[in-house]
Amino acid sequence: LRAREYGIKIGVLPTGIHNAITDVAGVRVGHVTLREGNAIRTGVTAILPHEGNVFQEKVPAAIYVGNGFGKLAGTTQVQELGNLETPIILTNTLGVGTALDAVVGYVLQQSGNEQVQSVNAVVGETNDGYLNDIRGRHITEAHVREALQEARGGEVAEGNVGAGTGTVCFGFKGGIGTSSRRLPDAMGGYTVGVLVQTNFGGVLQIDGAPVGEGLKQYFGSQHIQDSADGSCMIIVATDAPVDARNLERMAKRGIMGLAKTGGIASNGSGDYVVAFSSHPGLRVPYASSDKTQAVTLLRNEEMSPLFMAIIEATEEAIINSLFKAETTEGKEQHVVEALPLDKVIRILKQHRVIRK
Amino acid sequence: LRAREYGIKIGVLPTGIHNAITDVAGVRVGHVTLREGNAIRTGVTAILPHEGNVFQEKVPAAIYVGNGFGKLAGTTQVQELGNLETPIILTNTLGVGTALDAVVGYVLQQSGNEQVQSVNAVVGETNDGYLNDIRGRHITEAHVREALQEARGGEVAEGNVGAGTGTVCFGFKGGIGTSSRRLPDAMGGYTVGVLVQTNFGGVLQIDGAPVGEGLKQYFGSQHIQDSADGSCMIIVATDAPVDARNLERMAKRGIMGLAKTGGIASNGSGDYVVAFSSHPGLRVPYASSDKTQAVTLLRNEEMSPLFMAIIEATEEAIINSLFKAETTEGKEQHVVEALPLDKVIRILKQHRVIRK
Amino acid sequence: LRAREYGIKIGVLPTGIHNAITDVAGVRVGHVTLREGNAIRTGVTAILPHEGNVFQEKVPAAIYVGNGFGKLAGTTQVQELGNLETPIILTNTLGVGTALDAVVGYVLQQSGNEQVQSVNAVVGETNDGYLNDIRGRHITEAHVREALQEARGGEVAEGNVGAGTGTVCFGFKGGIGTSSRRLPDAMGGYTVGVLVQTNFGGVLQIDGAPVGEGLKQYFGSQHIQDSADGSCMIIVATDAPVDARNLERMAKRGIMGLAKTGGIASNGSGDYVVAFSSHPGLRVPYASSDKTQAVTLLRNEEMSPLFMAIIEATEEAIINSLFKAETTEGKEQHVVEALPLDKVIRILKQHRVIRK
Amino acid sequence: LRAREYGIKIGVLPTGIHNAITDVAGVRVGHVTLREGNAIRTGVTAILPHEGNVFQEKVPAAIYVGNGFGKLAGTTQVQELGNLETPIILTNTLGVGTALDAVVGYVLQQSGNEQVQSVNAVVGETNDGYLNDIRGRHITEAHVREALQEARGGEVAEGNVGAGTGTVCFGFKGGIGTSSRRLPDAMGGYTVGVLVQTNFGGVLQIDGAPVGEGLKQYFGSQHIQDSADGSCMIIVATDAPVDARNLERMAKRGIMGLAKTGGIASNGSGDYVVAFSSHPGLRVPYASSDKTQAVTLLRNEEMSPLFMAIIEATEEAIINSLFKAETTEGKEQHVVEALPLDKVIRILKQHRVIRK
Repeated sequence: LRAREYGIKIGVLPTGIHNAITDVAGVRVGHVTLREGNAIRTGVTAILPHEGNVFQEKVPAAIYVGNGFGKLAGTTQVQELGNLETPIILTNTLGVGTALDAVVGYVLQQSGNEQVQSVNAVVGETNDGYLNDIRGRHITEAHVREALQEARGGEVAEGNVGAGTGTVCFGFKGGIGTSSRRLPDAMGGYTVGVLVQTNFGGVLQIDGAPVGEGLKQYFGSQHIQDSADGSCMIIVATDAPVDARNLERMAKRGIMGLAKTGGIASNGSGDYVVAFSSHPGLRVPYASSDKTQAVTLLRNEEMSPLFMAIIEATEEAIINSLFKAETTEGKEQHVVEALPLDKVIRILKQHRVIRK
Repeated sequence: LRAREYGIKIGVLPTGIHNAITDVAGVRVGHVTLREGNAIRTGVTAILPHEGNVFQEKVPAAIYVGNGFGKLAGTTQVQELGNLETPIILTNTLGVGTALDAVVGYVLQQSGNEQVQSVNAVVGETNDGYLNDIRGRHITEAHVREALQEARGGEVAEGNVGAGTGTVCFGFKGGIGTSSRRLPDAMGGYTVGVLVQTNFGGVLQIDGAPVGEGLKQYFGSQHIQDSADGSCMIIVATDAPVDARNLERMAKRGIMGLAKTGGIASNGSGDYVVAFSSHPGLRVPYASSDKTQAVTLLRNEEMSPLFMAIIEATEEAIINSLFKAETTEGKEQHVVEALPLDKVIRILKQHRVIRK
Repeated sequence: LRAREYGIKIGVLPTGIHNAITDVAGVRVGHVTLREGNAIRTGVTAILPHEGNVFQEKVPAAIYVGNGFGKLAGTTQVQELGNLETPIILTNTLGVGTALDAVVGYVLQQSGNEQVQSVNAVVGETNDGYLNDIRGRHITEAHVREALQEARGGEVAEGNVGAGTGTVCFGFKGGIGTSSRRLPDAMGGYTVGVLVQTNFGGVLQIDGAPVGEGLKQYFGSQHIQDSADGSCMIIVATDAPVDARNLERMAKRGIMGLAKTGGIASNGSGDYVVAFSSHPGLRVPYASSDKTQAVTLLRNEEMSPLFMAIIEATEEAIINSLFKAETTEGKEQHVVEALPLDKVIRILKQHRVIRK
Repeated sequence: LRAREYGIKIGVLPTGIHNAITDVAGVRVGHVTLREGNAIRTGVTAILPHEGNVFQEKVPAAIYVGNGFGKLAGTTQVQELGNLETPIILTNTLGVGTALDAVVGYVLQQSGNEQVQSVNAVVGETNDGYLNDIRGRHITEAHVREALQEARGGEVAEGNVGAGTGTVCFGFKGGIGTSSRRLPDAMGGYTVGVLVQTNFGGVLQIDGAPVGEGLKQYFGSQHIQDSADGSCMIIVATDAPVDARNLERMAKRGIMGLAKTGGIASNGSGDYVVAFSSHPGLRVPYASSDKTQAVTLLRNEEMSPLFMAIIEATEEAIINSLFKAETTEGKEQHVVEALPLDKVIRILKQHRVIRK
């Protein structure tokens, strides 16, 4: 069950229909999960910003680097031009090159892209090397293409799937999580969706309750085993009409959501937020006979509710990744336990996060 | 009483002796509080990084902009050269120019600085215009000099003092707060101290407990009254031997501490973190016959405990600012209530933040 | 005479009517020059982005830091919100606080701003302390207000005026310079104007010719006298419909223009570019009942000619500042010679920069 | 012949022995050139920062983004941690994924790296798609490994080699170029070396002379053919003891050197500078039992000569790439002419860049 099904209500804003990044119109998610033999525990997750040809109809986008111990590809072009021209791929640290090649191939082959000679693929990663034979480099281009093809809207699989298959979060099994918020109409009625790949440490809090301390498992309690390192990829989608500058501001709030779960963005963490707007009126055509583009944009003054929505949805997405992940045995018989939900629920009840 | 005296224990690391920024050796704090007539509710707070001539012996420093709706002066030189050459002054938004002039005058007149022709003063601010006749611009250079002269180590006054005299936080009376952490010896034994000037909004949480919701006062609950705007200045001091690059990374964690109190870094917020190291071995001499400087610096791999310490100390400093602030009536008979501690304590007990 | 009047034609694009920043519709410039006694050689230059109330109708803007050894105030808010809400003031290094106060006062008192409680003044500087008694801090708020009142369109005084009264450039007398470019209609027909306050060093080149070497006066030739330090403030105005992101890209090209004069952005240089668009359709209203704003913006693909225009106009503005400056004696009988135009012209003819 | 052999002397500082990036002790360069059939005109260039295991002994490094329309991989980790842990690879735009995979494989297999699970490869590119069948993606991992193996010190092949095989610069055949500067002993005696991959446009100037105009081939003269787009990768090596912060400042000066050749960092350009110090005393060990590292670093005040050296060496490296490149026919019978040296020399003599 997801966190909310246990009665955990993070924040004050309502969720979207599926409480998922796919609540943002047009956004689709695809997973490919690799669980083979004793040591392959990895995968690929693809996020598509809209249903068309993203290269031909780019979306406004921004990237914020919370802590840059990571290999996220595609950063500087998004920051310079303010747009995203491919789906976003998440995978493991040593799979970035292959995933990059796969996205390039996918774009080159899309109908309409026959003349394209330059592709800026955005590929993020976290390091699943504790459970996964990461040095074996088992991700192939075919896996990436499959994730792209599998992408769909509606409910999103969480936990040990896709790029979250082998990740570890707060010393427990992490993975993929998602959540969304829908602003009240008075605040614009916009939707914000977040998807995370969780692989980091700190001192776990769930809706404020000191679960990590309660379980006696946190950074500092056992410095050697739980190094707090790892990473968190945070993907933020919205249908609000915001430009790249305000998307960068939104992206920065993703790390604030991470902070509320007890993450500390440790030295070894690659904590990145990629934010984009799928608002149809803001698509950036690859080629155009017009020298200018007319757009209608949210004023700065309207941004605060969106900031709050991202913080809430990121926090909840991370918690969902933990709730949905399952105990996993992998490489070298390493075992990472799922969050012990019975104990956790008890703690949450004690702290009135869950009202009996 | 401060938060910890009620039994609130934020985080897992121990505090320094005074649980204040002054626990970092050499750091001193001075306040000048202006409460005059019905409408003047403002002041100045000075933070001195060490006891010598700071211009002659600069300290490694960094500034991180959480949300830049603010007038912090001195930013770019600190970022370029990696050092701080004056005390830090906090005051109100429209007093920055005067404070800047005051610091320049103070430095020019310091013994040893007779030939100095260039001074980069760091002056931060938040907007106390709800309680204070800010347009009257009542801060004078004399006030700033007084704050510098008053500066001392040991316990630090909090709440309605200095630059916190007229500020508002989460809809309650905010002000100055401070806290510190001392790392275990195995993690280096370093001290981190934080001082904040709190003037921002969001959905207040205290050590994770939903106090804002419990009190029915938060951003979104009453959009008009509590705009969530405002600002938070966060000053971080450490005795750890860290260079400007790692100080910038430390500064970024200040915003994560703010996030844990329920702050959202709203559009209108000027949320800045200024971080410096007072480690004696890292002083940067203004003039030197040597072309090089030998320094011993912490490796990147040792930074994570410092990151955690800043997150914890920032969170606690903000809560302290609320606990120590008092109900204030000011300009146009505006009244801002202190945090209703009896109700708050009840909520904190319900959520087991305070164990009975 | 200005450089172009000697037959020096920098770049390939045509200039605007006055070859000045004021060729951008609505932009006005005002100078106040202080030459008093033997030692006061300083001043103030004000640049107004349009003829209305700038606070009520902000302009899209960006700031780029070429080298941040400087005290430019107002940076972070421009970067965060993407707009400029006051005139830009240039003055000397130790006058920033006073100028800041003056601008705040000016804005508070403008008709329509009676309720304003927050003002982000942008004040730049260079250090004229070789010729000017900078420690005497002779700039007053009245000087700044006078510069604002004096501001007008049309021709712009250059050389030893305003904030350029006491500056030194490539070891010669620098000062204020300006230039503009008008793009061909096929490239949009937009105008770019640049104004500079020159106070830096390096190895002077004029339209590519090695004038510094020819005159045997350059960084490295006489390390002690010409430290190459100093600073250059570069203000870029355009009527092109560009947002803050593309204005930041434009601002970065200002330093490329500086490079072409032989500047090296030395360690001690405060080299900043402030760029804004005065396009009427992009004004950002301070208050609005609308949550969104409709704007028509140049596509990224149309930016390159603007980039080239800025590089050319910055280069020419710097050269103009040198051509128009006059030999100055100041503090402690320091004398800075004007560029020796007869020798320079000879060198330029030898190198065919000037065709006989 | 290289530019200097024609009597062109760019700047005022002396070169190193080979006037190449390899003048920095320990730096090696390897090229693999692909010229196959009518349409394959591409390659790989590898730059190794020192002769040891770079992953085990990382070097201080920084990356500056002049204009980010490019796919440079590895940026954020270098910026966060301040070091480089792999050789730098340059190739074509669509080969980045493959090159990244190749570098990862190379590092994983190096002796001593058996336990390594995370590798941050730095791979840059420019787009050679006018001459090269870039969509065919002909770069293989074997090519990258070969470039790494071929790497050596001493003279560096320039022009149509390695990653410069198919590039176009100012409308002429570009390619690989290199140059170096050695500071006088009074300025520290340090060496700076630069290597460039040139593929950009603008209005060509050679040592200040208006060659592009003289040849009537420049951006604006023929907007359609010469779009000014393209890119320039600039690699800066030094033996000066500078940390990541000062390396970033050095990297920014690379773009100033590019500006002096008439480059404009057009919208479609991916102009990046990667700078590192090979100083043996600054190596960052991957693993260490020490929590701190003692280093001796240049003071900020000593940086200006290094800045000037980079500007000069970058300018000359770009010009060398043009002088050494040869007319090339490639994809779809596209022909890009080499710089017409006879005409160029004539222009340079007219402008006294070359003294008869």
